[in-house]
Amino acid sequence: MTVAAVVGTGLIGGSLGAALRRAGWYVRGTDANPLAAADAVDLGLTDEAPVDLPSCFRDADVVVLAVPVARIVDLLPAVDAHAPARALIIDTGSVKQPVVAAMEALPGADRAVGGHPLAGSHQGGPAAANADLFRGQTFVLCPSTRTSTETQERAASLAQTVGSVPHILSAPEHDRSVAVTSHLPQVLSSLLASLPADRRLVGPGYRDMTRLAGSDAALWRDILLYNRQEVLAAVHAFRASLDGMTQALAADNGEVVEQIIARGRAGVTV
Amino acid sequence: MTVAAVVGTGLIGGSLGAALRRAGWYVRGTDANPLAAADAVDLGLTDEAPVDLPSCFRDADVVVLAVPVARIVDLLPAVDAHAPARALIIDTGSVKQPVVAAMEALPGADRAVGGHPLAGSHQGGPAAANADLFRGQTFVLCPSTRTSTETQERAASLAQTVGSVPHILSAPEHDRSVAVTSHLPQVLSSLLASLPADRRLVGPGYRDMTRLAGSDAALWRDILLYNRQEVLAAVHAFRASLDGMTQALAADNGEVVEQIIARGRAGVTV
Repeated sequence: MTVAAVVGTGLIGGSLGAALRRAGWYVRGTDANPLAAADAVDLGLTDEAPVDLPSCFRDADVVVLAVPVARIVDLLPAVDAHAPARALIIDTGSVKQPVVAAMEALPGADRAVGGHPLAGSHQGGPAAANADLFRGQTFVLCPSTRTSTETQERAASLAQTVGSVPHILSAPEHDRSVAVTSHLPQVLSSLLASLPADRRLVGPGYRDMTRLAGSDAALWRDILLYNRQEVLAAVHAFRASLDGMTQALAADNGEVVEQIIARGRAGVTV
Repeated sequence: MTVAAVVGTGLIGGSLGAALRRAGWYVRGTDANPLAAADAVDLGLTDEAPVDLPSCFRDADVVVLAVPVARIVDLLPAVDAHAPARALIIDTGSVKQPVVAAMEALPGADRAVGGHPLAGSHQGGPAAANADLFRGQTFVLCPSTRTSTETQERAASLAQTVGSVPHILSAPEHDRSVAVTSHLPQVLSSLLASLPADRRLVGPGYRDMTRLAGSDAALWRDILLYNRQEVLAAVHAFRASLDGMTQALAADNGEVVEQIIARGRAGVTV
């Protein structure tokens, strides 16, 4: 039986556990919060909640680090030291450059690869987890210069096992792209939701636009700071667009206003 | 039998027609596009598609103007002149000050009231219409200084008939509030969708944030220009928040970044 050790049984780790169990794997799951690890067992996301990391890693074919980026970087040396020699090491962090740099420095760098399953939700914790979270979504794989081809293939197979589509990308490319597709949207949603608004005049569009704002603040502080150069570049590009709209509105220029809205429509219907 | 004349059988007019028919009303619907009016009958949204406005208004208890704001303002004098004396006149436009000012100038100003059912979608046309579009949503009513109390009561009853919750507000208050809850979100969504993005790295959050960007460009040009002072104020407030986030990121100030995200979270969970 294939064995997975999942470190962090929140939304992402719990959902991965559930998807792997459904595929016939045996899943051990630990969490810094022992209640979350126990909940994951109760909810059927994992088979077992070992008391410490070495017990979690026993016989593991794959170790998945589904914890915040700072914690992934901290944990990697111990994971490499204690996981069985054949075990694949992969993470699920939202920013890849710091993780992949830490992986590259490991003695077992050949069996480590950065991962980012593109799913998630503004809700967190094992209770929000489900085996279908990754179905049809892209699972980005970011190898370091020392990641072996076999490791990439095993990671791609893991991504497919949970129903997602593996996509290999360099860590810098990943971080630049998600600054636009994930981190900037989070910033915009949070800022919009923080403006005073008459709740009675809120329709489905506003609700769509502020759903992400319900996300965990400490988690997003870390993601935005870890990727702050790319996020700043995305925010600057957005601000330039916003200035263009401001000028068109101030000048009562309907032609330019319509062009801007039409350009956005073309963007989503590509 | 209560009779409604719906001018404009797109998403909003068609959905109102369907909701009124379900409540036992007889609904006549016209549209500048005769095909849309015929489609509305075929889709069961209206009972009949009269060839001209006077036939549409015959025996009407209520005339609903569900067309773009500029067209509402243009049509109002003819509607007031041709609709039966007892007919309530209401519109569904997204900006209320120009409409309510035009209503106030009518000979029959006492029976006219501005309306804005807070529903809608990035999709348009009769095919997107449905009788449940307004269920549980706020239906804003904006009386002019000359709107009678009886007219307000009849409009509130109409709002309830289609399943929505009537809410009386002055036109300036309405326009200021929807600039934040509807027009600014549209601008942000359109601008985000117009930035180049790697489609493979798009997750559910990005899709939520760019759904509105699929809206009709000409329709939104008019809404934004009709409400441009309030939209500009909302954009300026948003830009000040964006600058705050930019400064916090540039300074690597995790505390402030976390506060900003937490403030947004507090905003949506009020």
